[in-house]
Amino acid sequence: MIAAVMRHGKVGGVTGKRDNLARPNPPSPNPSQRSDVSPFIVMDVMSAAARIEQAGGDVVHMEVGQPAASAPRTALAAAEAALHAGRVGYTEALGIPSLRRRIARHYGETYGVSVPEERICVTTGSSGAFLLAFLAMFEAGDRVAIATPGYPAYYNILQALGIEVVEIETSAATRWTLSGEMVAAAHAEKPLNGVLAMSPGNPTGVVMAPEAIAALAATCERLGLWLISDEIYHGLTYDHPAETALRFSDDAVIVNSFSKYFCMTGWRVGWLVLPERLVRPVERLTQNFNISVPYLSQVAAEAAFEGRAEMEGVRAGYQRNRDLLVRELPRIGLGNHLPIDGAFYAFIDIGHLTNDSARFCRRMLEEAGVAATPGLDFDRARGHRYFRLSFAGSEAEIAEAVHRLGQWLPRAGQ
Amino acid sequence: MIAAVMRHGKVGGVTGKRDNLARPNPPSPNPSQRSDVSPFIVMDVMSAAARIEQAGGDVVHMEVGQPAASAPRTALAAAEAALHAGRVGYTEALGIPSLRRRIARHYGETYGVSVPEERICVTTGSSGAFLLAFLAMFEAGDRVAIATPGYPAYYNILQALGIEVVEIETSAATRWTLSGEMVAAAHAEKPLNGVLAMSPGNPTGVVMAPEAIAALAATCERLGLWLISDEIYHGLTYDHPAETALRFSDDAVIVNSFSKYFCMTGWRVGWLVLPERLVRPVERLTQNFNISVPYLSQVAAEAAFEGRAEMEGVRAGYQRNRDLLVRELPRIGLGNHLPIDGAFYAFIDIGHLTNDSARFCRRMLEEAGVAATPGLDFDRARGHRYFRLSFAGSEAEIAEAVHRLGQWLPRAGQ
Repeated sequence: MIAAVMRHGKVGGVTGKRDNLARPNPPSPNPSQRSDVSPFIVMDVMSAAARIEQAGGDVVHMEVGQPAASAPRTALAAAEAALHAGRVGYTEALGIPSLRRRIARHYGETYGVSVPEERICVTTGSSGAFLLAFLAMFEAGDRVAIATPGYPAYYNILQALGIEVVEIETSAATRWTLSGEMVAAAHAEKPLNGVLAMSPGNPTGVVMAPEAIAALAATCERLGLWLISDEIYHGLTYDHPAETALRFSDDAVIVNSFSKYFCMTGWRVGWLVLPERLVRPVERLTQNFNISVPYLSQVAAEAAFEGRAEMEGVRAGYQRNRDLLVRELPRIGLGNHLPIDGAFYAFIDIGHLTNDSARFCRRMLEEAGVAATPGLDFDRARGHRYFRLSFAGSEAEIAEAVHRLGQWLPRAGQ
Repeated sequence: MIAAVMRHGKVGGVTGKRDNLARPNPPSPNPSQRSDVSPFIVMDVMSAAARIEQAGGDVVHMEVGQPAASAPRTALAAAEAALHAGRVGYTEALGIPSLRRRIARHYGETYGVSVPEERICVTTGSSGAFLLAFLAMFEAGDRVAIATPGYPAYYNILQALGIEVVEIETSAATRWTLSGEMVAAAHAEKPLNGVLAMSPGNPTGVVMAPEAIAALAATCERLGLWLISDEIYHGLTYDHPAETALRFSDDAVIVNSFSKYFCMTGWRVGWLVLPERLVRPVERLTQNFNISVPYLSQVAAEAAFEGRAEMEGVRAGYQRNRDLLVRELPRIGLGNHLPIDGAFYAFIDIGHLTNDSARFCRRMLEEAGVAATPGLDFDRARGHRYFRLSFAGSEAEIAEAVHRLGQWLPRAGQ
């Protein structure tokens, strides 16, 4: 209790309005320690950007991992039809059967992998998928390996659920992804229960080679570890398509979402592919934790698969943005970035310019009018010398950002 | 591990397809023990009902706690306009500011209680609210008291988050709700960390008197316990309005939703009212666990407040259903039910007819064509002699159900 009181910087107490009692009242209860997860530094950037814009300033937004485009027209039309058709009610806990069937079919069409629809669980975004998967796979006290740099919510969700997070530093040596050897070494040091991999990566943008996924899956199988593969950026690749972990392990838990490729962030709809023995546990959990996933979002998601041609146009725009960045970043002195294979992020090493990426991003926003995310959100050990640019906006925006950075960077060290 | 293997009735093992290794592979990992929450028995009823209907049979559905009506027209129109207006994107983690403001205003208008909008957190239904509130308030190992009979997801969510559930049996003596004395006695036996109360109740239908809420709030404050008040059925009362716990304690955590009064189950949107010191912890948690609540649902929810006249018409229909049940249930031998003050449930004691409510409900479905929920879903100790009827359907349906039960019950004991 003392620790909690001190950490939260205040002492709970009675309000003094009550009658005198024989003994003093206990203090008011405090927030839990497990809710003390790290805030996102990018939120401060976003608030500062909003203040600048309210004051009439002009900001190019490259801080948020959100497509500028809308959901496919097929999805919007389906949602509108559903709005007119009648009650927007609960659905089956695991999702509308026709959507589960459509997602299963997607694995055949896209990867040539056969997955029965019974193993698909529709979720409230990939966020909802992580809660269910982590609870179904891990006890409190279990140990799960993740890569740094990586998506910060992994760490925070695992921690809040009482799961010990084992951060494994990646580097250019393994193209910034987890390898089977790294996992085996961590496991040998102290046993793991699971491994979470992501390809294409956020913030890295790196796509794992099929052989790298295969090796990771084989290691997990050999050591008896759960493998979770976050494939939310699948479909957004620029050189080679990303491969699903399902091809190499029927036992892998796949997380995916309609947010990125299908530009459906605000709909909050995603899915899990589960090994058979996790289906019932996840179904029971989602009955209790969610009852069901939003109805309109499920209807729109099913129709989104018919809008792939439209989405390929959006992807082609990202590709142009990516090509522009790969061409221009070296020219303005930001050429030391991770490989941009997929997703819509450039993760840029600025160690030659600063040792304080948070301050760097604050100044970049104020002085150059470009909003970006400090690397500390993704890597607490090394993020002080990195920042992330999201290129999910329009080509004109990306070009303008590069122009502004080119003008500003010569002054940035001052 | 052995326990888990045995409990799940299978032994994890290698598939035998691999090369021989020096030592045997470890078994494949198993589902977690904490995912082993109770399934809902009502799901079996629903599956059986679906089978009967697919075979051409006719079922009156009184098993699901879901309004038959649609969201107010104001909400539907707002969602449609938002669909046309542009991108459906992420919102602020705590919810769209104008919706938070509108919810805060609701407390002034409806209860005469002033709540600053900063203390409102929009959630993905009340389900999403419970996850955030429980994580923010309680550590693993903390002890939280709930009433039985009660909403089964309380127990299951708390258990899955590592929180010890202290079930307190209620009875007619306290009108089936928790009293300050009951909580103080439980706390004296072994210290509690929080108390979860619900009014109007599910499955009880009971509305707590203002004095009862005041006494409970005072006890929690005196003992230094968190108080969570689930007010999801507020607005659906038939004799006296329900009072919010906020009137008696600024420190109470309020859970509410647009699902019931506003008939918006499938939209998945609700809210929390938080004491100030929980706002930041909940904001950090929801950034990680949800990113944001579905956008269209938030837009529709804000507009729903302008559809109250339409919703009062729906409520008047429930009142007629309730009056019909109060009048007719005694006539057909089911008069021994809890007080139906609010919500849309009759929780009926059938101890004179059966000691096996699950079997009773199965037979009722097959022989009378009425689907209802066995009491075991709400009270594991005493539910074998209760069942729940939901009267959120049309008056014609309720009348038909009463007619069928009246015909069937004389044969039910055979």
